[in-house]
Amino acid sequence: MSSFFEGVEQGAEVSKEEFEAAEPQLRVDLLNGQFDLSRSSASVVLALGGIDYQGRDELVNRLYGWVDARYVRTEALYPPTEAELVHPRPWRIWHRMPPRGSMSIFLSDWTTSLLETKEPDLADVEKQAADMRRFERMLAADGLRIVKVWLHLPKDALEKRKRKAKKGDGWGLWKEERKVLEHYEEGMPWVEAMLEGTGTVDSPWHLVESTQGRHRALAVGQAAAAATSRAVTVRTTRVDVAGGPHEGAPRLADVDLTARLDEAEYHERREELQERLRKLSRKAWKKKVPAVFAFEGWDAAGKGGVIRRLTSAFDARLFHVIPIAAPTEEERAHHYLWRFWRHVPADGRTTLFDRSWYGRVLVERVEGFAPEADWRRAYDEINDFERQLLDHGTVFRKYWLHLSPEEQLARFQAREKTSFKKYKITDEDYRNREKWDD
Amino acid sequence: MSSFFEGVEQGAEVSKEEFEAAEPQLRVDLLNGQFDLSRSSASVVLALGGIDYQGRDELVNRLYGWVDARYVRTEALYPPTEAELVHPRPWRIWHRMPPRGSMSIFLSDWTTSLLETKEPDLADVEKQAADMRRFERMLAADGLRIVKVWLHLPKDALEKRKRKAKKGDGWGLWKEERKVLEHYEEGMPWVEAMLEGTGTVDSPWHLVESTQGRHRALAVGQAAAAATSRAVTVRTTRVDVAGGPHEGAPRLADVDLTARLDEAEYHERREELQERLRKLSRKAWKKKVPAVFAFEGWDAAGKGGVIRRLTSAFDARLFHVIPIAAPTEEERAHHYLWRFWRHVPADGRTTLFDRSWYGRVLVERVEGFAPEADWRRAYDEINDFERQLLDHGTVFRKYWLHLSPEEQLARFQAREKTSFKKYKITDEDYRNREKWDD
Repeated sequence: MSSFFEGVEQGAEVSKEEFEAAEPQLRVDLLNGQFDLSRSSASVVLALGGIDYQGRDELVNRLYGWVDARYVRTEALYPPTEAELVHPRPWRIWHRMPPRGSMSIFLSDWTTSLLETKEPDLADVEKQAADMRRFERMLAADGLRIVKVWLHLPKDALEKRKRKAKKGDGWGLWKEERKVLEHYEEGMPWVEAMLEGTGTVDSPWHLVESTQGRHRALAVGQAAAAATSRAVTVRTTRVDVAGGPHEGAPRLADVDLTARLDEAEYHERREELQERLRKLSRKAWKKKVPAVFAFEGWDAAGKGGVIRRLTSAFDARLFHVIPIAAPTEEERAHHYLWRFWRHVPADGRTTLFDRSWYGRVLVERVEGFAPEADWRRAYDEINDFERQLLDHGTVFRKYWLHLSPEEQLARFQAREKTSFKKYKITDEDYRNREKWDD
Repeated sequence: MSSFFEGVEQGAEVSKEEFEAAEPQLRVDLLNGQFDLSRSSASVVLALGGIDYQGRDELVNRLYGWVDARYVRTEALYPPTEAELVHPRPWRIWHRMPPRGSMSIFLSDWTTSLLETKEPDLADVEKQAADMRRFERMLAADGLRIVKVWLHLPKDALEKRKRKAKKGDGWGLWKEERKVLEHYEEGMPWVEAMLEGTGTVDSPWHLVESTQGRHRALAVGQAAAAATSRAVTVRTTRVDVAGGPHEGAPRLADVDLTARLDEAEYHERREELQERLRKLSRKAWKKKVPAVFAFEGWDAAGKGGVIRRLTSAFDARLFHVIPIAAPTEEERAHHYLWRFWRHVPADGRTTLFDRSWYGRVLVERVEGFAPEADWRRAYDEINDFERQLLDHGTVFRKYWLHLSPEEQLARFQAREKTSFKKYKITDEDYRNREKWDD
């Protein structure tokens, strides 16, 4: 075996006495860590990967004997649920993310897929690793501490388990473990590449020799306790100095504000387009193509009107409109993108966002709700988010509805006079108007 | 046809002029109604049933041309999603329930199933109607206004649509409509029975003749506007005088507080039982049997300890522990049972509730958080909820952990001395203790 796993093929063992001596303090540390965590804005993910599937499950049961189960959730990422299969891939992580103050144990086994493939595409492994690093960095900056544990078994430990099973006095090998054993030599270099590619200073891999249950439990328990304690005390918020708006975007100054459409032509084309949209929305359902439309723009620029025309065209069974105002308590307990991920449509469905994640770099930036480090980083985070939609095959369009400040004022005044729209104008709208230049 | 539908087989029509004269006011009423609703603690469900499927969809698009789409969601109840198929039937309604301040349009078509069955079981129709009435009454008492619309088509209107389709200048009949036409005579009496059985004073059926689009739109739009306005102004909170604790429950005074188990025997039997539970939890997964365990009891009675022993036995991939403390903002925006329904397990999975819906008749009653009318009604509501779990085949057990006030005090004091449990005791625990007799 290569030197990569050498340190965890030493036959490490913990005696019963050592274990019993260490256990009480570990429990105190875990419980007190959870208590401090529950009062903080941080959260912890304990990701249990590796090739010892039986050991992993035994370990989780041991952990539940130590922790306060009220602040822990276990999330088995495989096999994916039906709902997960019809959403973009990151959704299965997002909708299981622990809220601030709590911990989740993720049971993942993308390993097996690496061990099954004879010759995985190295470029693809590197791309996946880079995606993962960026994803974890984003979450870490939001207060999530990720403890990545790799439960390693030397090949001979697996073989021993197999022999014991044959003699009838062992657990037997699981399906996944049989695969690992079969492809051990050729698969492990790929696993190494993945581990090396995703270990970072903030969130390194803990390689744990998994042969003995007591050793495994102490090693992982102590890593979890240490990480929980660090999650509460050390906040990883780095300014990504390269962050900020990207070049080459269209500029508001270039919008032709004199563009007009003749009333008769408008009605004719609108009906045509609505009919086309209706048919397309049903066709998208049949072909399982999801769509996301995001609307931003000045107050009174017409977002509501546009959305009304779209929603009176789409098949009503297939879309949802999500208005974005102040986040709810549950939404505030997660990364700011969580509230958008929860409404990312399933295949064949459409979500219309009335305002969007761009609030992070618009209202939150202008009003100072997000610190500079946070909104600067957001430009890259938003690009990643949108790329993830596109990678899944989601039809995605974003619209900025533009008008002049004078036109906005005229519309505010007109709205105050009509009976059915007047509630849309409040003092706050006038206050927001004053920040136009910002 | 029977006289039941006579009133909606009159060939009702609205001229283009009448429609255009009424439309602006209707839009004002709907938008202002939505605005008032958004500032209230009420909510509205517009349930669109009936045999005119095409008309229903056309109607929804028209409604979206009038309303503020930000406060409306459309929920197509059929076909059920994969997630809905693995949960008890009421879950598909609960998880789509509009939060306070908003409206949902439910597109339902249980009609078809009645029209498909040659001779439905009348007793079953009556049982379903009774269930539905009770369900709607419960939600109404919580501030939900349900507008039930039946879109009726005389048989000849359906036949005309069919003939037009054959000539190639009509929409064609939908699959559902073909079924309705085929079973019109024998099916309609069952539909009548269902409509009669579920129409109530608070929430009657609006029978709407659906032949003409303009008539259908005005009738439904006006019913929705009126209901929205009533939802805000009239709060239906009736005291169910018969409500209250049921007879025959076991009494705390009868619990033997001297029962003891020998330490050695405890360890031996615990390990045996944990091993059995582990196997059973995997078997339940294979057989798709869900389970719910609810734990109530005095502070320091040992809920956490019991749950820890269970969770270190269950297959960790298959259970979740749900601690019940103060509800979140989203939970407060729904009926109090909503927060429990959202955690009702899918088939094969287990949920352990650390405290439960019994809070409604315990802490909420004792502390006066729920008015008397609300907690009195809750006894029946809770029985209904639990029966719905059982009807689905869910394994359900509830536990009250009992101890004496003296033992509780001793445990509080002991906990203050140990390092890893001390955070469990707060001034509030001592305050709660003072309300023991209540």
